[in-house]
Amino acid sequence: MFKVKVYITLRESVLDPQGSAVRSSLHALSYNEVQEVRIGKYLELTLEKNENVDARVKEMCEKLLANTVIEDYRYEIEEVVPS
Amino acid sequence: MFKVKVYITLRESVLDPQGSAVRSSLHALSYNEVQEVRIGKYLELTLEKNENVDARVKEMCEKLLANTVIEDYRYEIEEVVPS
Repeated sequence: MFKVKVYITLRESVLDPQGSAVRSSLHALSYNEVQEVRIGKYLELTLEKNENVDARVKEMCEKLLANTVIEDYRYEIEEVVPS
Repeated sequence: MFKVKVYITLRESVLDPQGSAVRSSLHALSYNEVQEVRIGKYLELTLEKNENVDARVKEMCEKLLANTVIEDYRYEIEEVVPS
């Protein structure tokens, strides 16, 4: 079994209005040290044991999970040995 | 300056309909090895140098960033030295 953690973030050049809204809210709560907030997605996938995990996870990201025009992604694969 | 990475995930006991929808879509694309998908948020904050970073980030999570009734959070703080 594999646990895969996928991090999807907006590309640097893409505006993040949701992040700006959160930053404003943090300032309103007096957290004025906050300079920037960028919001992305964090996915945890549980996969059955199979060959080519890495290649297949990359495909899933490209085809469905991330919008590669405006988003970057990275992932970590961890093998879980059932106890 | 600090870079803070915040990971917000739904608690184990909370249903994740968005994750289920993504799992169905992955199955429809023939990624049948996918057993479970859980979707969370990933935030990157840039903070000015200040005292008590750890305590203040914890407060931000508790007050605004996470809904602690249904979500768990964890964060990593990294000091960035401007070059």
